[in-house]
Parts: sequence; C-alpha cells; structure tokens
Amino acid sequence: MSDVVINHATVRERADMLAFLDLCAQRGLTEVSIWGNEIDRVGEEAALAALARHDMRVAGYNRIGPFTADGLSRAEAELARAARFGADHVFVFTGGLARRGETLAEARDRAEAVIADLLDMARAAGVTLALEPLHPMLMGDRTMIASLTHANDLCDRLGAGIGVVIDVHHLWWDDRLPAEIARAGRAGRILGFHVNDWLVPTRHLLTDRGMMGDGVIDLPGIAAMMRAAGYNGPVEVEIFSADWWARDPGEVMDTALARCARIFGAGRGA
Amino acid sequence: MSDVVINHATVRERADMLAFLDLCAQRGLTEVSIWGNEIDRVGEEAALAALARHDMRVAGYNRIGPFTADGLSRAEAELARAARFGADHVFVFTGGLARRGETLAEARDRAEAVIADLLDMARAAGVTLALEPLHPMLMGDRTMIASLTHANDLCDRLGAGIGVVIDVHHLWWDDRLPAEIARAGRAGRILGFHVNDWLVPTRHLLTDRGMMGDGVIDLPGIAAMMRAAGYNGPVEVEIFSADWWARDPGEVMDTALARCARIFGAGRGA
Repeated sequence: MSDVVINHATVRERADMLAFLDLCAQRGLTEVSIWGNEIDRVGEEAALAALARHDMRVAGYNRIGPFTADGLSRAEAELARAARFGADHVFVFTGGLARRGETLAEARDRAEAVIADLLDMARAAGVTLALEPLHPMLMGDRTMIASLTHANDLCDRLGAGIGVVIDVHHLWWDDRLPAEIARAGRAGRILGFHVNDWLVPTRHLLTDRGMMGDGVIDLPGIAAMMRAAGYNGPVEVEIFSADWWARDPGEVMDTALARCARIFGAGRGA
Repeated sequence: MSDVVINHATVRERADMLAFLDLCAQRGLTEVSIWGNEIDRVGEEAALAALARHDMRVAGYNRIGPFTADGLSRAEAELARAARFGADHVFVFTGGLARRGETLAEARDRAEAVIADLLDMARAAGVTLALEPLHPMLMGDRTMIASLTHANDLCDRLGAGIGVVIDVHHLWWDDRLPAEIARAGRAGRILGFHVNDWLVPTRHLLTDRGMMGDGVIDLPGIAAMMRAAGYNGPVEVEIFSADWWARDPGEVMDTALARCARIFGAGRGA
C-alpha cells in the first residue's frame, strides 16, 4: 500500500468540504473520502467542481442509512449521488435497534433484509457497497454488524457488488481478525483499510479515537495481514476525536501523514 | 434458576461489606459475591463473622489479578483467602497490556501462560477459577479475554478446575453467544450468570451499566439459552454504574430483586 486517503470526518469540525479538499490538494493527496451531509453544507455543484479542479478521486462515500423500522429512505438518491461523485464504494450504515423491545436477533434479520434490497439498487446504480463492521460497543445503538466474520458471511450470501472495509479501531481486539482478513482477501472483497488507534483509557465510545501510534493497536501487524491478503490499496485515516477536531486541520493532516509514513511506509499520492 | 445473588460492586460506593451483608440478609438472600479489597476495608475477621452470623454463602470471589509483566503477585494469598471464605469460584482478572509496545498477540500468550500456572495453584488450594470474558471495549486496558469463544477454548486446553461466568453486558452483542453458551453447558463449566443491561447510549466504558430492563439486551432470550445449556444456578446482579452507586443501596437492591422476579422469575433465597 502506497497511498494515503484522509477521511473528511477526521477534520470535519474545523474544515468544511471545500477547505478540506484544498488542504488535501496542498499536501499532494489525490484521493479522499467524503460525507453526504458535508456535501449538503457546501452544495453539490461546488463540491463536484472542487474535486474536478483538484483532479481528486473519491474513495469512500458516507453513507446510506441508518435503516429505520420501515426500511430505508433516500437510498436511491444517495446511491445516485455517490455515482455522480464517482465513489469507489458507498458505506452501509445499518443503525441500531429500530424500537424499544426489538431484540438483537430481530434487528439483525431486519438489517440483513434491507442490505439485500439495497444491493439490488446499488447494482442498478453501478455502485459498490461497503460493509464496515463497527466495534461491539456500538451494537444496538449504531450497528448490527460488529465483526468481520458477520460481514464476510453476509457478503458470501449476497454475491457480487458488496465488500468490506476494515477499520482497526473496530476490529483490532478480535482474535478472528487474521483469519477473517485472509478470507476477505481470498474473496477479493477488501475495499478499504481505515487506520487510527485505540487509546487506553478510551474516554468516550464515539469521539475518543487515537492518532496512529498513540494507542495500543498493533498497526504494523494488521498492515502485514492486509498485505498478505493481497490488499494494495490506500490506508485511509479516519479519526473521530474531540481532541483532534479541536486542533488546526492542516496540522492534524500533517501529523497523520507523518505517522502513516512511519508506520505503514505510506506516502502521499502515488 | 431460582435464586438471586447480589454482587457487592453493585452498591459498593454507599455500603461497605458489613452493611451490604446486612442489607442482603434483610431481603432474605442467602448468597453473595464479594471483593478482596472490600474485605480489607472491614477486616477479614469481621467479614467472616458477618457471613457466619447471616448463614450466607459466597458465590464469586473477586479477584486474582491484574497480571503484571512479571506474572502474578499475591495469587497464593488471594487463593487461600478465597478458600477461607468458601467461595464457589474465584475470578481471574488478566488486566491489559503490560507495557507500551506489547502487542495484543504477545499479551494474550502471556495471559494464557499465567492462567495455566494459576490453575495449578488453585487446584492445590481447592479453589475453582472463573474466566469472565469482558467486553471487547475493555481489551488492552483490562482484559485479554473478550469472547466466550476464547474462554471456552482456554478451558478446553486447561482441563478441570476452571470454568466460565457469563455476563450479559460483556457478551450480549456476540452472534456466537448461543453456540458458545451451549458449548460451555455441554462441558459442565458454567459457574455463573451475571445480569445487568446495556444502555443506549452508553456514556462510559466502565461505569454506565444499566439495571435489568432499562437497556436493550434480550435478557429473557439469554436466560433461555442458559437454561437450555443446563444452568440452574442463581442470577447474579452486577451493575457498575455511577447513577446507581449514587442511590440508596437498599433501594437499588429492591429494584434489582423486583426486576429479577419480573424478567427471570428469580426469587430471593430458594
């Protein structure tokens, strides 16, 4: 893996999408991951124009979901927009339990049925879906898919047009990780590799992710698993952190790029 | 399952061990789970005398650990004390990574080696060890065992004298749970069933557990898995919660008992 992608979420609090793209371009980056709600803030036309001006590709488009008790609203519109932005993959965000009293087993079944429907729509739109298993601490609240095993199982059942993104924050703890990364690699379904770190202590379930190297995740070890699985795409920096959000976005990006170079041997725009 | 056990941790902030035992006895409870550091606070002699006076048994003794880079200190003394208190089982608390730079794989190997040594000591002391897999969000910081699969695997390798305690807060999210509870049941190694709930949102990784019925865990569903696995021991209430710690200990216990009766059909002292 040679490239670095920055996910806009990493600096979203102090840089809107246009400022974010400028910062990426100044650092020689050629690919970014973006968010639909951030496009809304600056306007789709301005966002597309900025991407074209910087000759910048879109890796991940966030996101379709959360699912509601009735299924999905806005899915087709979001898929069409992701296609207009030329996104490599579109994240599926199941959300949590739909209502008080829904059991986990019921919610899982519901989420899997919605994903199957969504995949039909995505194939029609020419867009690839990405399942990103989230940390088990987000089960119930934000996801129904909390292991790479589950994501791989789902992809096996669903067939072409859907793959997985591996985020170290969500998956580093799982002793099945080496086997499941290898399995995803054999199936040719690894769409992305999100990096950050797990801080000890972690003070908040959503907004206390660490910068690569500041936590306890064996990042070189997981990167080696990814390479062994045949993944040679970029490392994508995605850090949800109240601490990093408070800092200057350019400094955050410079720190992230330096860490990626040191830990992953990954440089800007290959 | 017919009995309820209260774990002292549930009310520890406003009731020392002697007050806790009084409150349990007033409510007709005949079994408790206790902590070594709380025994230290009131004195071992007073603690043993209170248990004898109330004719109360000890279910779980907390705990041996955390392990250090050098292994374990005080293990033999703790095991001997657990034996003096007649504990049904003694919790193994591995703790997290021993030092900066230790990888998860290294720490797991280290923890497993210490547990094997500890089991030899426990057998000599006539004490049963309990592995309680903790939530993956506590990996790195407080545990090296974050799935029932891992705990079952370890027990399979280690043989007699060690079993598992199933805590819903730590394990509810795992789609392997039904199969792994059944596996633990077949092996005759289920030592306890800890109940509480998962709140949405959960605001803190350690001190925001819910009272049974206030969260999203399918408690009747997991209780049915436990019964199907042949478990007919007590339900043990263990709630680490800044909110519940701030309330009157007797009220907390009354609430817990009422919820156990409603959700599990479990009553006080069989």
